[in-house]
Amino acid sequence: MARLRLQLPSRQYDTAEAFIEASVNALQPIIEQVGGIETIKAMGIGAPNGNYYNGTIEIAPNIKWAHECVVPLAKMFSEQLNNIPVAITNDANAAAIGEMVYGVARGMKNFIVLTLGTGVGSGVVVNGQLVYGCDGFAGELGHVTMVRGEEGRMCGCGRTGCLEAYCSATGVARTAKELLSKTDRPSLLRDINIDDITSLDVSIAASKGDELAKEIYEFTGHMLGEACADFATFCSPEAFIFFGGMTKAGDLIMEPIKKAYEAHVMPIYRGKAQFLVSGLDGASAAVLGASAIGWEV
Amino acid sequence: MARLRLQLPSRQYDTAEAFIEASVNALQPIIEQVGGIETIKAMGIGAPNGNYYNGTIEIAPNIKWAHECVVPLAKMFSEQLNNIPVAITNDANAAAIGEMVYGVARGMKNFIVLTLGTGVGSGVVVNGQLVYGCDGFAGELGHVTMVRGEEGRMCGCGRTGCLEAYCSATGVARTAKELLSKTDRPSLLRDINIDDITSLDVSIAASKGDELAKEIYEFTGHMLGEACADFATFCSPEAFIFFGGMTKAGDLIMEPIKKAYEAHVMPIYRGKAQFLVSGLDGASAAVLGASAIGWEV
Repeated sequence: MARLRLQLPSRQYDTAEAFIEASVNALQPIIEQVGGIETIKAMGIGAPNGNYYNGTIEIAPNIKWAHECVVPLAKMFSEQLNNIPVAITNDANAAAIGEMVYGVARGMKNFIVLTLGTGVGSGVVVNGQLVYGCDGFAGELGHVTMVRGEEGRMCGCGRTGCLEAYCSATGVARTAKELLSKTDRPSLLRDINIDDITSLDVSIAASKGDELAKEIYEFTGHMLGEACADFATFCSPEAFIFFGGMTKAGDLIMEPIKKAYEAHVMPIYRGKAQFLVSGLDGASAAVLGASAIGWEV
Repeated sequence: MARLRLQLPSRQYDTAEAFIEASVNALQPIIEQVGGIETIKAMGIGAPNGNYYNGTIEIAPNIKWAHECVVPLAKMFSEQLNNIPVAITNDANAAAIGEMVYGVARGMKNFIVLTLGTGVGSGVVVNGQLVYGCDGFAGELGHVTMVRGEEGRMCGCGRTGCLEAYCSATGVARTAKELLSKTDRPSLLRDINIDDITSLDVSIAASKGDELAKEIYEFTGHMLGEACADFATFCSPEAFIFFGGMTKAGDLIMEPIKKAYEAHVMPIYRGKAQFLVSGLDGASAAVLGASAIGWEV
């Protein structure tokens, strides 16, 4: 299968109409190259807050033209593309399907994909099917509460103590800032302006043996492992698959995850789940997954 | 459909063989009454730690003949019953199927049953199918961690801070003992020997207006509501269905559950899930559910 790829920054458009017009224009050369719109059977879209049931994007905080409304994106694209069927799902769900069809989850029927990026997203597969729930919005495991009560960090969702507030790339940077400002422990990270520290900086410092940076990844991995131990009680998955920029930290993050999981999971689940890192590159898994949901419509 | 019921205390037998022999003998009059074993298509069993995939009971703490081993109960029953197919699942899963086929979950595709009894059990239905996971043991939501760290109560599973340690009938009794021994607040519960207090006593005291008893149910319901808010991120169910002795406390327990849920759930899920109490009596849901899984084999 030939893969053609183009990038278009969705945030730079003011309206859904403008974004779709630009997208369809940009797609034209690809459409021509494969033999025209008549040869295309369907389109699949992975998008933040994408709703598979309704073909919509709903209240997506980071997209200007969808952050306060429901946009019928599937229908709007279909109308511009010779009425071919268009399916939509959120980006983490698309990644889960990408892993199932092309990635490390091939052959698996029960697994969880956790995307560790700016946020923490998830796609849950049970009995070989993606879990969409009653409303199309199931699988928001980044928003289970890990720290209850007043101590919990504010989360972008408006609540406190969510997994995402600690274990996303943003969360890792916050942990770094907290540790650096509350202690006077030495660290390579002190060479960086505290407000500019990223999870990548922490990962680089840790790989140079920086104790404080290693502790930050220990803390992050430990919390992810504890969260996964809770997730196991739900669907006893055969694998947890990690995806996104933060997995580049490798064993720094994966080892504490596995260790905390085995220490905290119910004895009946111990030793059963694999902990895998996606082999697909960031963009590919979601694009491939989105194309796979296109086939289902 | 005529329903015949008999009870046999599984704990009084020393071996699985003795239990099966007694069960098959006790079943004979019923088998004869419906026209003999040839007219029976299948058998369904709901049992603690029952494994649907393997037809086994595995390491069931409360059954003498299965608490340290794996018992192939389905096969053993089948051999004594003219080799009819026999299916097994755990009792909370059987209750979930009972609700789906005969109870308040009729027509639902995504819901969670929580059984509030001696322990907290659960059966999770996603896309109209029970969630068994990779090993047949999925759906142990009574063992998500609600209180992390050293403060967490010891749980029967060997870990600490589990939902079950607080929100089972046993957990309610423990909460009562803690509150009574740590404070000198007046309460009707002080008329009872502290080690004999049950969740029913707390419920009766609360219904008489006892403030301390009401607070115990507030606390219990609040924690259940917070837990359900986490469960929603997984499968966005259309209903949470509560089942078991503790639901007899009615609004005392259900109102704080609903209130805490709506206060803690992600905004995207708010107002979507129903909170229902099973209409089937305790034994019926599990028996009916078990019979329904018999049909699937």
